[in-house]
Amino acid sequence: MGAMATLPPKIDDLVTRLLDGDRNALPRVISLVERGDPAVPEVMERVRPALGRSHRVGITGPPGAGKSTLVEALIKHYRNAEKAVGVLGVDPSSPFSGGAILGDRVRMRDHYLDPGVFIRSMATRGASGGLSAVAPRTLKLLDAAGMDIVLLETAGVGQTELDVMDAVDTVVVVVVPEAGDAIQTMKAGLMEIADIFVVNKADRTGAKRMAADLALNVHLGTRMTEWWEVPVLEAQAFRGIGIEELAASIADHLRVSAELGHLESTRKEQRRRELMRSIREEIHARVRRAAGADGNVGSLLREVESGDLDPDTAAGALLNDGQLLKEWLSNIGPDGASGDR
Amino acid sequence: MGAMATLPPKIDDLVTRLLDGDRNALPRVISLVERGDPAVPEVMERVRPALGRSHRVGITGPPGAGKSTLVEALIKHYRNAEKAVGVLGVDPSSPFSGGAILGDRVRMRDHYLDPGVFIRSMATRGASGGLSAVAPRTLKLLDAAGMDIVLLETAGVGQTELDVMDAVDTVVVVVVPEAGDAIQTMKAGLMEIADIFVVNKADRTGAKRMAADLALNVHLGTRMTEWWEVPVLEAQAFRGIGIEELAASIADHLRVSAELGHLESTRKEQRRRELMRSIREEIHARVRRAAGADGNVGSLLREVESGDLDPDTAAGALLNDGQLLKEWLSNIGPDGASGDR
Repeated sequence: MGAMATLPPKIDDLVTRLLDGDRNALPRVISLVERGDPAVPEVMERVRPALGRSHRVGITGPPGAGKSTLVEALIKHYRNAEKAVGVLGVDPSSPFSGGAILGDRVRMRDHYLDPGVFIRSMATRGASGGLSAVAPRTLKLLDAAGMDIVLLETAGVGQTELDVMDAVDTVVVVVVPEAGDAIQTMKAGLMEIADIFVVNKADRTGAKRMAADLALNVHLGTRMTEWWEVPVLEAQAFRGIGIEELAASIADHLRVSAELGHLESTRKEQRRRELMRSIREEIHARVRRAAGADGNVGSLLREVESGDLDPDTAAGALLNDGQLLKEWLSNIGPDGASGDR
Repeated sequence: MGAMATLPPKIDDLVTRLLDGDRNALPRVISLVERGDPAVPEVMERVRPALGRSHRVGITGPPGAGKSTLVEALIKHYRNAEKAVGVLGVDPSSPFSGGAILGDRVRMRDHYLDPGVFIRSMATRGASGGLSAVAPRTLKLLDAAGMDIVLLETAGVGQTELDVMDAVDTVVVVVVPEAGDAIQTMKAGLMEIADIFVVNKADRTGAKRMAADLALNVHLGTRMTEWWEVPVLEAQAFRGIGIEELAASIADHLRVSAELGHLESTRKEQRRRELMRSIREEIHARVRRAAGADGNVGSLLREVESGDLDPDTAAGALLNDGQLLKEWLSNIGPDGASGDR
């Protein structure tokens, strides 16, 4: 791979501390990743050998399903079992303000004094490279920092949220017994990504009915899971009811998945997709820089902007014309050091 | 730009007919775009000179807001004014089945016999290159086919749906007077993309209150629109009430935007983003092909898959190492003709 560049001493020290389990280093390295620091690839390569020890569990579902309460209950459960828990909460946010609406997250304050719990919230926008780039890296940092369990909570309403679930080992979909919820769940694609269903607020009317509907859907088999029958559990997270069973089911899923070799093949596929995403990001950054530059590439971009050239045709030209490609890639270095921006 | 390749005679003929306003050619060219035919860039360049004549209007909002009913009412309005209307409906769909839940779309059957109306539904998944690639191209085809008005209806629940709205001139956000709707709307980022708000089902309790809330929010100005005060209209789409006013407001927005030069600068920005997306897509396709290939690039990919190399580090190596880059780009042509897959 060629020689690695050296990390700046301060970052190097932070990463070393993170790997040694220093919880104070963790938020600072995450911030580095969030703002897209140039050192990110090296940081990720440094933590790489320490990866794969956490069980990464995604908690998703429609708004109002009580996901945060369930996450809280799970934290308590895992802390009783003396497991270190990392939580990444992803809130829908305004594309304009970049700010997350924190809401229930505030309730998790209880855990802030517990060194065995680390909680981080993240906006869906604002993070450099977008949520789909930053969230998987953050999960890795939580893993490398020695968390036994890493919980990823997302709103489960959009494509980005579904995509992020790609980075976990086990997906828990939380629903509530309310009319129309089942069909909305299916529409949002949650049906297909669930390894475990939880009907939360199970004391409400319709809970049994909904659990039965979901179980039927699971049996009708929209998902190919010959090795895993997706369980439909009932819970009242607020009262702590059903949490033991959920945690047992989560542990089961990992165990079976690992035993049958699915865990490793899934993780392989995840790493491949991460590479794809990383290449796209880098290319994107370089094109953005080229947009302001002189030369043939800059004028190609301006032709597109003015509507004198179709974007797809221009993209083809840029990637297939050896001359253009050479100009683009040679002038525009990875850190924008070409001086023409 | 170098010589353009020639389109296969059959596709060439289809595009010519589309540009001549032959409505039978339109669905066939759209299908070509949906399945990512290699001829797509040339098709888009062929139709390019005919672009920019349609007024592209996005209709979005939370599920249950009555978007489809509103679209139907608008179609009727525009048909009465003898305008040709193209509609692209984008439904949330299962990432697994790739099939859209058609629902209300069936009601639009009435218009299928009217040659002045063209309606197309599209799944959010399944289209080659994804919705964010296919939807803007489809809007262009509707434009090139001579539609006066092009309506894009999306579910407005996720990031992809918001992104697609990037391809229109005027965004109408439809809401209904229900508790929590306002906050959900803001959370989903709809607040920031609206050029016009419609409170639909305005006969319901809370409609006035909601309209007032929205108007207040508009005044508090989350969006920089010194040149356009976002109107908050009331409608009962089912009864055809408020549709005249909405259509007038839509027309106003285009007129003012064009007069002040905002229309052209927005379209410029849209074309630039399309180029970015197109380059990303093409790069993505090439990496995917390289994954199965021998040589250094293939082994780099396998190192990432096995967890022996960090994806971000690998991406950097691929784009910065001249030798690797050359191998990758020279071996893997745009149509996969390298023979090594």
